[in-house]
Amino acid sequence: MSSVWNQARRAARMNPSIIREILKVTEKPGILSMAGGLPSSDTFPVEELKAACDRVLSENAKEALQYAASEGFAPLREWVAARSAELGMQVAPEQVLITSGSQQGLDLVGKILCDAGAPVAVETPTYLGALQAFTPYEPIFTSLASDAQGVDPAALARLPHDAPGTRFAYLLPNYQNPTGRVMPLERRQAAVAAAQQAGVPIVEDNPYGDLWFDEPPLPSLSSLWPEGSIYLGSFSKVLTPGFRLGYVIAPSELYPKLLQAKQAADLHTPGFNQRVVYEVVRNGFLDQHIPKIRARYKANRDAMAEGLKQHLPEGCEWQTPQGGMFFWIRLPEGLNVMDLLPKAVDAGIAFVPGAAFYAHSPDPRTMRLSFVTLTPAQISEGVAILGRVLREAIDNGAEITP
Amino acid sequence: MSSVWNQARRAARMNPSIIREILKVTEKPGILSMAGGLPSSDTFPVEELKAACDRVLSENAKEALQYAASEGFAPLREWVAARSAELGMQVAPEQVLITSGSQQGLDLVGKILCDAGAPVAVETPTYLGALQAFTPYEPIFTSLASDAQGVDPAALARLPHDAPGTRFAYLLPNYQNPTGRVMPLERRQAAVAAAQQAGVPIVEDNPYGDLWFDEPPLPSLSSLWPEGSIYLGSFSKVLTPGFRLGYVIAPSELYPKLLQAKQAADLHTPGFNQRVVYEVVRNGFLDQHIPKIRARYKANRDAMAEGLKQHLPEGCEWQTPQGGMFFWIRLPEGLNVMDLLPKAVDAGIAFVPGAAFYAHSPDPRTMRLSFVTLTPAQISEGVAILGRVLREAIDNGAEITP
Repeated sequence: MSSVWNQARRAARMNPSIIREILKVTEKPGILSMAGGLPSSDTFPVEELKAACDRVLSENAKEALQYAASEGFAPLREWVAARSAELGMQVAPEQVLITSGSQQGLDLVGKILCDAGAPVAVETPTYLGALQAFTPYEPIFTSLASDAQGVDPAALARLPHDAPGTRFAYLLPNYQNPTGRVMPLERRQAAVAAAQQAGVPIVEDNPYGDLWFDEPPLPSLSSLWPEGSIYLGSFSKVLTPGFRLGYVIAPSELYPKLLQAKQAADLHTPGFNQRVVYEVVRNGFLDQHIPKIRARYKANRDAMAEGLKQHLPEGCEWQTPQGGMFFWIRLPEGLNVMDLLPKAVDAGIAFVPGAAFYAHSPDPRTMRLSFVTLTPAQISEGVAILGRVLREAIDNGAEITP
Repeated sequence: MSSVWNQARRAARMNPSIIREILKVTEKPGILSMAGGLPSSDTFPVEELKAACDRVLSENAKEALQYAASEGFAPLREWVAARSAELGMQVAPEQVLITSGSQQGLDLVGKILCDAGAPVAVETPTYLGALQAFTPYEPIFTSLASDAQGVDPAALARLPHDAPGTRFAYLLPNYQNPTGRVMPLERRQAAVAAAQQAGVPIVEDNPYGDLWFDEPPLPSLSSLWPEGSIYLGSFSKVLTPGFRLGYVIAPSELYPKLLQAKQAADLHTPGFNQRVVYEVVRNGFLDQHIPKIRARYKANRDAMAEGLKQHLPEGCEWQTPQGGMFFWIRLPEGLNVMDLLPKAVDAGIAFVPGAAFYAHSPDPRTMRLSFVTLTPAQISEGVAILGRVLREAIDNGAEITP
């Protein structure tokens, strides 16, 4: 029987998240999972949130439970604007749009900037969720050459030739998901200069910037080119992802259109959630809370760095991340991560194949390991198992897909 | 200086909400506003929500504050599926997608079903927020002839001729925003039969169905044609809009694509909010709570019905709504509601011009009056002022725009 439904052309481009499908396979009891991109639930400030819920519902229930402004809760917008000064930005509260997680920021940016067939430039590799958010708006992705310091400025400079009419370059300067890499200051300056020269604006995504271990954050790309940048931030990694609170900081020129897109998408982000989070952050709570998350994640990072050094066979390549949540491993020639995953799951561990994070030409030898959901002891155990699985695959060379 | 930003073609179609702009003008202290579409904040179950927040954060904090499934919280999906039986529907939990308000349901439906230039049929008039949600996906709207019983089935039957390739008809059978009208059973049956015959599926929006005053709800359109209907529901009018919780019930055929659109849009609706609302509704709370809202709104409706009869000049037309939140008034020939609004605001009242709710050919003689945010005494006073403003306009006929 034929269907009465005709789907949009864009629907054919949309696909289920590969990671999501992989996580289903790897969700077995007892497995040591380094696959998920979840923050550690031990870092959620439960008591503070509970007290704040109570306060909001005791003091401002009617306002918190009613429809609210699409722009977001004004005091929270002011807080975001003020805090962005830490990254060298000068932001007016009127430039801040509160979103339902920074994923929604990506969706709204796609909605107002992407046209079918118009290029959008992304890092190699890049955040999978951004590819998913932009894809329904049918851009043509351009994969920018990138190295351990992030995007190659020369690739940005070549955009007018390689991909004329590029709507924006989507960049993640801090502890990028999936690679964990950070852009040094000189690279930031060179990249922004190249983008300016090329006339390609920047969409900067910074969910992990607060999770630095060694050096405090560098100036944001947006601080170097305010009128040519949109900045996306999130409360998911420093408070809780379960409240779905993020924000977009946009040039005044773009703000009204972003706001209309927000209004059409869900009217506004829950006012209750915004008020509760504002209650928690208003008096400097994050200044004592984030250092605790950093200390915890840094110890985990150290455990994984040590384990990898000890257990991974020769020929594996990685950099130790200076912040964030992920190691990015490249296996020796001849190994294929997708083929290894079932063996790893059988052996009791899980990770995410890096192939999911490429707009083009996935590198089948890459994998992403999260170090924030397991304990240091579990990380050591998990990485030891990974080492055994890899050695076995190398030893049974015959089984390896070339 | 030319801008570095190139906006999407669809962005040019997007506009700020006219209602929003009007509400700004009418938000003066002391004004008796019948303009907003807000539920009465006196109906929000503050103590129940407070207890539920506390329970969720005491018993399931880590799960409630972590990333969660894009489909929604499983027990809440089961609750929604079971409750839909009241409207004659047979729904599996797997068909339920929890959304960030039903506005997001409209956005996701537009995303997977609308193509640039493909027709979408709407009632005359229709819900403004739906026009806003669909517009970024660049459909061509077809305004279906409608009367006091809702959409004209003959107009649906003519769609293959009038607008071939129509993707869906967007219908609001219960106490429609803005007209307050309800579709009688025979009209529902005739409309669904006509849509089936025309091969045009239905998107049914039912935010007000629980707010009936005289007769319990009729079977939903979706119950009459499950495989050809998407159903949108909401917790905004029966619990709180500030939690932004709605849901889509979709045929299995469409569910995976809707889910992908949801994931791309904001990953998931806040898990905390879903668990809190589930805690509140799980043991039958709504069965005692909704009758209280109905009794309150019915008294208000009666006050407005009485006031309108007493104060409105001859030639004004309206029907007394059997549920929901709105009266819809049509003024005598020669009056223009937009011209009257500033005078009304000066006189101390506000309403929404009906023109905002038309996809085509707005009727400048229509206005929407909400009866749920004021008290009965304020309603009487407000309607008396409206009567004076109208009489004055009629008496000063020379000032009236023809």
